[in-house]
Amino acid sequence: MKKLMNDVEQIVDEMLNGMVLAHPNDLRRLDGTTVLVRKNAPVQGKVGIVSGGGSGHEPAHGGFVGKGMLDAAVAGEVFTSPTPDQVFEAIKAVDGGKGVLLVIKNYTGDVMNFEMAGEMAEAEGISVKQVVVNDDVAVEDSSFTSGRRGIAGTVFVHKIAGALAEQGAELNEVQAAAEKVIKNVKSMGMSLSPCTVPAAGKPGFTLADNEIEIGTGIHGEPGVERTDVKPAAEIAQILFDKIDADMHLKSGDEVAVLINGLGSTPMMELYVFNNSAAAILKEKGVHVTETIVGEWMTSLEMAGVSLTILKLDDQLTSLLHAPAETTAFKR
Amino acid sequence: MKKLMNDVEQIVDEMLNGMVLAHPNDLRRLDGTTVLVRKNAPVQGKVGIVSGGGSGHEPAHGGFVGKGMLDAAVAGEVFTSPTPDQVFEAIKAVDGGKGVLLVIKNYTGDVMNFEMAGEMAEAEGISVKQVVVNDDVAVEDSSFTSGRRGIAGTVFVHKIAGALAEQGAELNEVQAAAEKVIKNVKSMGMSLSPCTVPAAGKPGFTLADNEIEIGTGIHGEPGVERTDVKPAAEIAQILFDKIDADMHLKSGDEVAVLINGLGSTPMMELYVFNNSAAAILKEKGVHVTETIVGEWMTSLEMAGVSLTILKLDDQLTSLLHAPAETTAFKR
Repeated sequence: MKKLMNDVEQIVDEMLNGMVLAHPNDLRRLDGTTVLVRKNAPVQGKVGIVSGGGSGHEPAHGGFVGKGMLDAAVAGEVFTSPTPDQVFEAIKAVDGGKGVLLVIKNYTGDVMNFEMAGEMAEAEGISVKQVVVNDDVAVEDSSFTSGRRGIAGTVFVHKIAGALAEQGAELNEVQAAAEKVIKNVKSMGMSLSPCTVPAAGKPGFTLADNEIEIGTGIHGEPGVERTDVKPAAEIAQILFDKIDADMHLKSGDEVAVLINGLGSTPMMELYVFNNSAAAILKEKGVHVTETIVGEWMTSLEMAGVSLTILKLDDQLTSLLHAPAETTAFKR
Repeated sequence: MKKLMNDVEQIVDEMLNGMVLAHPNDLRRLDGTTVLVRKNAPVQGKVGIVSGGGSGHEPAHGGFVGKGMLDAAVAGEVFTSPTPDQVFEAIKAVDGGKGVLLVIKNYTGDVMNFEMAGEMAEAEGISVKQVVVNDDVAVEDSSFTSGRRGIAGTVFVHKIAGALAEQGAELNEVQAAAEKVIKNVKSMGMSLSPCTVPAAGKPGFTLADNEIEIGTGIHGEPGVERTDVKPAAEIAQILFDKIDADMHLKSGDEVAVLINGLGSTPMMELYVFNNSAAAILKEKGVHVTETIVGEWMTSLEMAGVSLTILKLDDQLTSLLHAPAETTAFKR
């Protein structure tokens, strides 16, 4: 295992410190925790939004802390849910009197721990609601999940719920917008190579020299098929078809597309993939009003890509285009 | 070789199309060329700024096209200089009557081809000046270079020259600011793994399982030393010492730091590295007023990092903080 690091035990701690050192005017780390909050948290009169999960998916979620997206991100150990007490600290730190929305990716540990934290906060008089993102259409149930996994579509939930919260909406309205995104967002990924959890020291799975996996999860959970390397256009078609089996896109529909690199896929390849994906959508008459290409929800140094499609309506479009000032995502 | 692509011969073409499809309101591709320009080029009454070079360094340089940075980026084949006629097309497309500055990374082919294009444009009555970035302190002369190589420090040249041009400065003033950046910016990189040029099909060099290379160039050119894997803090110290042997930083100096991932290094590791680098600068009493962490000047899927330090004065600080609206870099 070759990684740019000092001590496996300190990797999350040093990462969080390195983030705050890079963005001292934007981020603050709550003392003694793995929680990053907006420098000015809590924002009075605004619904607070808390997300997080295991580390190793950077820039998710710390990179999305800032005006127009998250108020706090809670980091667990690599690919491991943060504990309820950490999430509880985040909730308390960002409650500005209008309550707090928890955005949880659908993994059993995350759901359990965030829920427990929510209950702890409710017991102290803070209103807490939650949404669970399950955008990954690849498989039902998986290594760490009951139901569908939450992957890159989560970024759209952060963006849209965050924008509405920034406008002063109430907790139930912010929750409803987040639920609307979840209902309308689907994703699927594939990998060309595995990744190595630092504490494990070896790859979580292996792929042969000419083998790729379709439908892999962001922790390397099994996908739907292992196959020979295929052209990007064919991969885009496979991912799109599985997504569309759920979305049933029609000519004239408006969508936002997120092309997400899993960690070690060069921008060159992501843009080649986008070129292929855009052709599929155009052929179908679907209007792509927004395309976001980059690394948003990674799996350490895994090579691969995920395709996310969000079906838009006027409210979602408007909130998607609202300002965001985070360290990883600006508009 | 496993890459997300369709046809090796078409990879740059499809990448450029994929970029324009993702950013149709920001970028335009000049017909029949590999040139990306700002959608509204030429901007009348503004010095145009053109950069570029071989592909494979994305987001450099197409990702830096936009308000406050570049007017055009010219893409060559992977790790290969664009031809003079392509650069000439870029110059003509962005000249808004105040002349054009060429920002060239110091590689023999780039310098020759951009200079030739500049002469072609001058012959047509366009004022053209150029600067050559040579920030890499690792080695003097290298596989493709006479003198020092130009690497990630180029991003600061784009940012600062671009900001001044946006303010309406004259060509000689924009050139002088770019030269000031070049005089004050130093970088050095290291790699944990090589990368594979698509047309070559195999890695440009090899490293053993426990081996890293210090001072590698962004095309995999030889560095200064191959050694066992070392902790991030030790690597940061090696890179800093070599940079400081040139910069002679003193307590109280103000600097901007750019931590650049070479392609497949996770954000987690880049932030761990920043944590280590920041400690070195703090110990020395150097004041870091700006830290930029991410992938800015990559080498396809190479794993590794480069450290760039820019010594600031009031003018450079002000221009560094000016607005920028590009697809890869926003502020």
